[in-house]
Amino acid sequence: MLLNCDLGESFGAWTMGLDQEVMPLIDMANVACGFHASDPLIMHKTLTLAKQYGVKIGAHPAYPDLVGFGRRSMKCTKDELSTMVWYQIGALQGICRPLGLNVSYVKPHGAMNNDMMANNDQLRIIMAAVHAYDPNLPLMIPISNDYAEHQAMAAEIGLRLILEAFADRAYDDTGRLVSRAKPGAVHHDASIIVAQAKSFAHKGGITSITGQWLDLPADSLCVHGDNAESVAAVARIREALGDKG
Amino acid sequence: MLLNCDLGESFGAWTMGLDQEVMPLIDMANVACGFHASDPLIMHKTLTLAKQYGVKIGAHPAYPDLVGFGRRSMKCTKDELSTMVWYQIGALQGICRPLGLNVSYVKPHGAMNNDMMANNDQLRIIMAAVHAYDPNLPLMIPISNDYAEHQAMAAEIGLRLILEAFADRAYDDTGRLVSRAKPGAVHHDASIIVAQAKSFAHKGGITSITGQWLDLPADSLCVHGDNAESVAAVARIREALGDKG
Amino acid sequence: MLLNCDLGESFGAWTMGLDQEVMPLIDMANVACGFHASDPLIMHKTLTLAKQYGVKIGAHPAYPDLVGFGRRSMKCTKDELSTMVWYQIGALQGICRPLGLNVSYVKPHGAMNNDMMANNDQLRIIMAAVHAYDPNLPLMIPISNDYAEHQAMAAEIGLRLILEAFADRAYDDTGRLVSRAKPGAVHHDASIIVAQAKSFAHKGGITSITGQWLDLPADSLCVHGDNAESVAAVARIREALGDKG
Amino acid sequence: MLLNCDLGESFGAWTMGLDQEVMPLIDMANVACGFHASDPLIMHKTLTLAKQYGVKIGAHPAYPDLVGFGRRSMKCTKDELSTMVWYQIGALQGICRPLGLNVSYVKPHGAMNNDMMANNDQLRIIMAAVHAYDPNLPLMIPISNDYAEHQAMAAEIGLRLILEAFADRAYDDTGRLVSRAKPGAVHHDASIIVAQAKSFAHKGGITSITGQWLDLPADSLCVHGDNAESVAAVARIREALGDKG
Repeated sequence: MLLNCDLGESFGAWTMGLDQEVMPLIDMANVACGFHASDPLIMHKTLTLAKQYGVKIGAHPAYPDLVGFGRRSMKCTKDELSTMVWYQIGALQGICRPLGLNVSYVKPHGAMNNDMMANNDQLRIIMAAVHAYDPNLPLMIPISNDYAEHQAMAAEIGLRLILEAFADRAYDDTGRLVSRAKPGAVHHDASIIVAQAKSFAHKGGITSITGQWLDLPADSLCVHGDNAESVAAVARIREALGDKG
Repeated sequence: MLLNCDLGESFGAWTMGLDQEVMPLIDMANVACGFHASDPLIMHKTLTLAKQYGVKIGAHPAYPDLVGFGRRSMKCTKDELSTMVWYQIGALQGICRPLGLNVSYVKPHGAMNNDMMANNDQLRIIMAAVHAYDPNLPLMIPISNDYAEHQAMAAEIGLRLILEAFADRAYDDTGRLVSRAKPGAVHHDASIIVAQAKSFAHKGGITSITGQWLDLPADSLCVHGDNAESVAAVARIREALGDKG
Repeated sequence: MLLNCDLGESFGAWTMGLDQEVMPLIDMANVACGFHASDPLIMHKTLTLAKQYGVKIGAHPAYPDLVGFGRRSMKCTKDELSTMVWYQIGALQGICRPLGLNVSYVKPHGAMNNDMMANNDQLRIIMAAVHAYDPNLPLMIPISNDYAEHQAMAAEIGLRLILEAFADRAYDDTGRLVSRAKPGAVHHDASIIVAQAKSFAHKGGITSITGQWLDLPADSLCVHGDNAESVAAVARIREALGDKG
Repeated sequence: MLLNCDLGESFGAWTMGLDQEVMPLIDMANVACGFHASDPLIMHKTLTLAKQYGVKIGAHPAYPDLVGFGRRSMKCTKDELSTMVWYQIGALQGICRPLGLNVSYVKPHGAMNNDMMANNDQLRIIMAAVHAYDPNLPLMIPISNDYAEHQAMAAEIGLRLILEAFADRAYDDTGRLVSRAKPGAVHHDASIIVAQAKSFAHKGGITSITGQWLDLPADSLCVHGDNAESVAAVARIREALGDKG
């Protein structure tokens, strides 16, 4: 069970996230590509840090919306979507190259991620775009009860998926995250977070917020480096799941 | 003698340049990468057109200044410069890849180009950045009487240069372009433009504005696709120099 | 019947629209404020031209999306919307002031306009924002069969509306523009355009695409300065409706 | 002796500065206008806070360079400079207006400030631009031994200056800040900072780094809200100089 984390989300003079603290604890870094956060200099610092800790690099493309941090849904055409994904993967690869690194996977950010998971047409566009860029580049998407359908969609075009789950979020009976607006959506108790991480890792699923068992064979857990509390939770998960390979 | 042209300089809903008309006539396209002009969609259209006509792709990186079209000098640090060059080459390569194309060379745009030619420290930074990205990727710079010195600087780090000249601009006795502010700086007469192109191609140099012979063994001529008049001049040059390989 | 036109939509080195040609023919200029198009320098040139021809200045605020020309719907919060409208009106007023001009009305652009006309909650947010900026500043919105409802919404907060109609577009039976995707949506015949303009001006309505009479007491006609053909149509409308006051 | 502080320098999801802590302590807030930092929503939050504490609002215009935080010198024309200043003052006034506030002065930021103080032609452009916007709007500039010359330049066009000084920076014998690159440039000892503030306030000058007395009759002290240490220094200065009017 690999740990992935969104990072490299500083921008210019502004700092976000405890990248220095969380990088040693994770396996996969989802690195912002300049559309919702980051800039060439910060991408280089982030990749340098990832290299130091042997962390795999994922492109974290987003809608072009710095001021909205890529969190606002934008209606884009198929060609706009495909080309903005290619541009961002390429830009990150451009910073990787002088460091001898490579982009290993793609995970859409924020509203681009939400929109594709809410709309199979958009998901197919993203899948096809990643596959057109490199047939061997996997796409990371959130797992849900529909994961087999998503895997079938991907298989149809020859794309590999990485299914991610969250240890610190409650799941509803469809295998989707409970909305943050609802009570109980976010786990704050580290022991609950660790237990959910272990359940994903060892039992291939978890119990939903209503108490129903969910088969969710995730490949990776998404962890957070936003603040000291979340980094502490990552350290606990890391300890519980065992050292990095 | 290869013909290169800055193009792909539209942006969003705004069109610039007669790319469709000039692409069939040139050998090398200097493609804007989104910092002074272009966006992912326009880059894709531009590369599709280049592919159709078998035109080599050059990255045309610039300072991050869309509103100023990359024409305003910006004081950047070495790391800012290097990483913004890598980002832009990579982004263009990202759009190339699904089309089965590759970035073949790099030519800095506008103020980034002027600044590096006015300051050897900045030129060395750009040279090192391109070499670090790919030791086999050549850098295109304007030729001048100092070309041998520039070649020596490049050789020191193992970089290959492509030296470009202009058929439609007068040269001063240092082998540099006469400032546009001065009379006689720009040739408008097509026969003069063609004659200068042939002189570069067949005699390895031209006569300066004061009548002095300049040895300027250029590898490529920069031509312009801005308007019908300049495209007509390119057609005349193409005819005079012979068909594309 | 006043003629309004979207203009000042160039950006940096890119030109859009025949502002010089259309400005003498219109009464009200909807001036881009830098979010979907324009920049401070172009705003200044546009306002200088408007002043020369005694044309009223309208702020034409948009979503922050230069590359998408403000045409892509973006999900924004109430506070994001209100403050982005205030910022853009103020910015335009900032360029107006040294010219002794004033912003006289507000007309949202593109997707911001479409979104507010598709959603009364969003329309109310825009109405309240304009009113909070200046209770005497009218908001221009497209007229439809729902105009009385929209006027009632505006009256509730003390805002005045300017209702605009199009001479070159067919209307459906709800008094809304027929989608451009449908045949007959756009009138290209100048005599039809002029007839529709006269019908709006003198009869307070027009006949819909299905032949039904629509009472649409518009205050202003939106005309276009995109190209020579559309400017010619504006000249015909101007001639038919009489000189500018 | 009024205290001014650069603030409102967050951007989108990124936070910068302890505005909440420093606002109660200062008299004048230099508010970022969206070109080097801030956005409409953050401007509104900043102005709301300024209103709560009765703090005067200054526009803090900058070069258009978010990623460089307005700290990189950009070569702009006179018209580019004038119009970007008007745009930014106007945009801030646009956010002020619904709050019943007004922009009371202008202080250029970062590289725009440095460039105008290094070049009287550029200073004259900024002075003329502020005066053209509103003849009663004062411009804040750093004091130096040349302050009388600067005042004469301003008087020639009918502009009022506000001269600012720094309590936490050493001055050289020309009455300019010692470069941060040199030892002793920045005071970290709060008692030295307070002493320098009192000297500016009560003696109309300070002793330079070489021990020479400098007559520097500053109108305002620039203080910093970047971190807890700098806010503590502001509190000490506030206490030493007396309560806000």
